[in-house]
Amino acid sequence: MAASPIVTSKQREEVVRGVPTQVVCTAFSNSVLVLVTQYGKMGTLVYLHPSAVGDAVGRPSLSTRVLLGKDEPLVHVCAKHLVAFVSQEAGNKPVLLAMALKDKTMEGIQALREVIRSCQVW
Amino acid sequence: MAASPIVTSKQREEVVRGVPTQVVCTAFSNSVLVLVTQYGKMGTLVYLHPSAVGDAVGRPSLSTRVLLGKDEPLVHVCAKHLVAFVSQEAGNKPVLLAMALKDKTMEGIQALREVIRSCQVW
Repeated sequence: MAASPIVTSKQREEVVRGVPTQVVCTAFSNSVLVLVTQYGKMGTLVYLHPSAVGDAVGRPSLSTRVLLGKDEPLVHVCAKHLVAFVSQEAGNKPVLLAMALKDKTMEGIQALREVIRSCQVW
Repeated sequence: MAASPIVTSKQREEVVRGVPTQVVCTAFSNSVLVLVTQYGKMGTLVYLHPSAVGDAVGRPSLSTRVLLGKDEPLVHVCAKHLVAFVSQEAGNKPVLLAMALKDKTMEGIQALREVIRSCQVW
């Protein structure tokens, strides 16, 4: 007896600006899991959740918390740039992000965002 | 230009002791990610890592840390019963476990362990 699928997952391998990259996105009912690796490692684990206080135009702002790995300002910035749009598009769900990035330039992050978008499950 | 796959993932949907269950296992180079959900939610996030001090027969013992969700003794026990074997079989790699369980009986955990084993990527 087979169960209907409960969670949906999409993954993609791609060379992004010269760096082999793998992205896996999994949609749970109450959150989204995004894995982005350019090292084959799980890397830093960051939890992004909409906070009650909204920003200037009333959108919930995202709080970031490093659960595993180095807790540095750049990690929070990268995490927000990478997956803030996922949280918003998913209806302000929290996002769990595991990232191991070689290319942390703005252009690199922008390109990764497009790969994440191609794995849209939310 | 396609990249060779960096991480390997297997997933399975199955009704386990009457409960629709989904398991996804992903092997990174330095850790294993195991998702087990019976609610469609991501649930509690637990990090299990071999500690330097071994047990009586010299195997590294597993430390458990709740990263997200309720930090209760039962969570640590369930997590160890579910995925200690994954860590051992993967060569004492740390395991990140997300679990949302309806059936937390010993029999339920045992049955889930077999589903996880069927998603072996380590």
